[in-house]
Amino acid sequence: MSHNNFLYLLNEALDKQHIQLALDSVKTFRAADLADVLSQLPFENSQVLLQHLPDRAYVFTYLSPDVQMKFANALPRQTLAEIVGEMSSDKRADLFKSLNQQQQDALLPALAQAEREDIRLLSSFVEGTAGAIMSSEYATLKPDLNVQDAIKMLRLEALDTETIYFAYVLDEARKLLGVISLKQLILAKEEQNIADLMTTNIVSAFVDTDQDEVAKTIARYDLLALPVIDHQGVMVGIVTYDDAMDVASEEATEDFLKAGAVNADRKLSLKSAPILLLYQRRVYWLVFLVFGSLLSGLGIAHFEDIIAANIVLVFFLPLLVGSGGNAGSQSATLMVRALATGDVHFKDWFYLLSRESLVALCLGGTMAMAVSALGYFRGDEMVALVLALSMLTIVMMGCLIGMSLPFVLNRFGMDPASASAPLVTSICDAKGVLIYLFIASQLLL
Amino acid sequence: MSHNNFLYLLNEALDKQHIQLALDSVKTFRAADLADVLSQLPFENSQVLLQHLPDRAYVFTYLSPDVQMKFANALPRQTLAEIVGEMSSDKRADLFKSLNQQQQDALLPALAQAEREDIRLLSSFVEGTAGAIMSSEYATLKPDLNVQDAIKMLRLEALDTETIYFAYVLDEARKLLGVISLKQLILAKEEQNIADLMTTNIVSAFVDTDQDEVAKTIARYDLLALPVIDHQGVMVGIVTYDDAMDVASEEATEDFLKAGAVNADRKLSLKSAPILLLYQRRVYWLVFLVFGSLLSGLGIAHFEDIIAANIVLVFFLPLLVGSGGNAGSQSATLMVRALATGDVHFKDWFYLLSRESLVALCLGGTMAMAVSALGYFRGDEMVALVLALSMLTIVMMGCLIGMSLPFVLNRFGMDPASASAPLVTSICDAKGVLIYLFIASQLLL
Repeated sequence: MSHNNFLYLLNEALDKQHIQLALDSVKTFRAADLADVLSQLPFENSQVLLQHLPDRAYVFTYLSPDVQMKFANALPRQTLAEIVGEMSSDKRADLFKSLNQQQQDALLPALAQAEREDIRLLSSFVEGTAGAIMSSEYATLKPDLNVQDAIKMLRLEALDTETIYFAYVLDEARKLLGVISLKQLILAKEEQNIADLMTTNIVSAFVDTDQDEVAKTIARYDLLALPVIDHQGVMVGIVTYDDAMDVASEEATEDFLKAGAVNADRKLSLKSAPILLLYQRRVYWLVFLVFGSLLSGLGIAHFEDIIAANIVLVFFLPLLVGSGGNAGSQSATLMVRALATGDVHFKDWFYLLSRESLVALCLGGTMAMAVSALGYFRGDEMVALVLALSMLTIVMMGCLIGMSLPFVLNRFGMDPASASAPLVTSICDAKGVLIYLFIASQLLL
Repeated sequence: MSHNNFLYLLNEALDKQHIQLALDSVKTFRAADLADVLSQLPFENSQVLLQHLPDRAYVFTYLSPDVQMKFANALPRQTLAEIVGEMSSDKRADLFKSLNQQQQDALLPALAQAEREDIRLLSSFVEGTAGAIMSSEYATLKPDLNVQDAIKMLRLEALDTETIYFAYVLDEARKLLGVISLKQLILAKEEQNIADLMTTNIVSAFVDTDQDEVAKTIARYDLLALPVIDHQGVMVGIVTYDDAMDVASEEATEDFLKAGAVNADRKLSLKSAPILLLYQRRVYWLVFLVFGSLLSGLGIAHFEDIIAANIVLVFFLPLLVGSGGNAGSQSATLMVRALATGDVHFKDWFYLLSRESLVALCLGGTMAMAVSALGYFRGDEMVALVLALSMLTIVMMGCLIGMSLPFVLNRFGMDPASASAPLVTSICDAKGVLIYLFIASQLLL
């Protein structure tokens, strides 16, 4: 049975109020798949199905933010409050932050006191920090417990925590003393003390650590979860590996879009974002890049005479200018990604520039040979010489500009990822026109 | 004490053969940090330190492939065999695959029979598939065990498995029957049967499933590990979440570099790759893109007369042509990333194209207004009209080309991510020249 047939039958069952039949037909589905099904059903029926799902709060967290908002607007307040109450703390805070003031005010009184406080705390952290992505549900142990009692404790806490595979050992003031894994507990003797077993050499993040930093730390040390502490050392939450994976994917999207001169927003959906939003994200750069093109135009206007006297030069203009832009885009792309993955650092700039000069020399040399052959064919030896010299200079300068731009942007407090291919191309175009026509004017007039 | 001071002292201690002092000074270091330290020490001393580290095989897995190879070439064969024997099965197979035939032949006899077979098996899978990234060390249970015995089994298996948080329930023929988590075991009653507790609705991958697919599945269902089976349903390995994170990061790098027209290689290090390799990765696209530029040149040559008669047109050429390329790059970038993250699918093409047309109309309209004002200022009403019409057409066509190119490439069996900004720019440049000069020739002659 195809997926579409299945959806059709499920929809029929819901139309006819055959709730149990509908539930039975999706009982082997995982939460992520159920969320897809809900997004594809007519909204009326998806509401009915969601309300009857046994794991509805968990499924709800897998819905995309815009679908979540649709449900939040339509569900009876009490049902919404129940779902929100059952959601994991980090996902709940995310949802709460997307609600408008009126919706927030309507929802809060329907929640339990502890949930209200939890939401208020988690919503208070700045977007993009560890605090904003952390969960407040983690297992804790006291240092003086023995292994047998610790496992009993974890069993009791299991329902209210994101993971029981790691437990955090806290003192009376909730300061983080150590970490112990369930594996360590299982392998230890029952009467051993937590304080003797726990790892005290802990990797942690502060609440205001950048989320990208958090994701990188989790990936670097292959952690399941990273404890988050405030600046007094008091434990406030954990970030789990699955949230780190989401952050890494969002950051990659942001960088990727910036590289294409799209004002990046990690939650921009090409499929469902409003047309106007997509327009706004793009028009800024398009207009900004006009200035680069105008510079090229001015360069051409300035050298009008040499162009008029050697019309063959115009034929090669796009080739020379384009090659410089392409080589520069490559350099900028390599540099931006290497900075993002931590392969290189800003302090390596001089070393990288010297390597890049060698690569640029080889690339420029290859292109110069190719274009001078073409120039000889369409013009004469002098044209070939002008083209070869121009190509070599343009490609080399393009590479060095492309490689340096991320560093320059960083110096001015901007994201190095804004060194997009279109930006590099615009700069290199203007520079290419000037170099080409200047060399031509010196050698041909 | 700064990191450089620390390295200096550590190096001194190793120079003077104070091994215990050196070991004490790094005893709080994690494997990833130790690998960094090893890469920064003079090679002689890093060999000494590595050989004495208690967790040397684990630290070794964190070294970059080129540093691993350096050690593999330098270490005594017996030491290398010991390290390789202790490494996790997936990392060991990766290392083995990077050795040349002679090194492989030297290493194999020094290993135990089981390790040899494991290496041979894991090395036999095609790069980029689940088989090539999976580990063969996972915990297994029999379905007729009770919980108490199962936990005892896991305790025994703990040292030889990547994780004991999930155990795979296999029948006599090693076919995968179900999965059970340590959390389920801890929460269950001691006398319950594994067969009654295990989850039988399993997400799994085949050995030949694409690694990108595997990483996406792990992220989608927030799994800790994904079991890998052959086409007979026999379990052969697991892929863990940390390997999935590495794959996701590599795939993002590959796409990012392709977007900048760098022939992507996920293991290309900007810092340490040979100059010649960097040259090869880039020259291919640079030369290929020459053809686009030549087309632009031919277009200009064809319309020489109209340019000569209206020299003001040349001033606006880079602006019009550049804007089309920039808008097209944006479209291609948005599309490539949306395809990579699964936000859109190839079947959505018509829908996306209709949305893109609207966005392109708005962008083209904005740019047309801006450029026609400039045109009126430097020329007259007719020039302004030519510029407005050209800009609108060029930007709209640029967007539609940028959006369609990933689909076209996919149709021809190529990676849609090859629709790089430079490629789109080259195509759009040629198209822009033709549109602009054609419109000018119709309205101005």
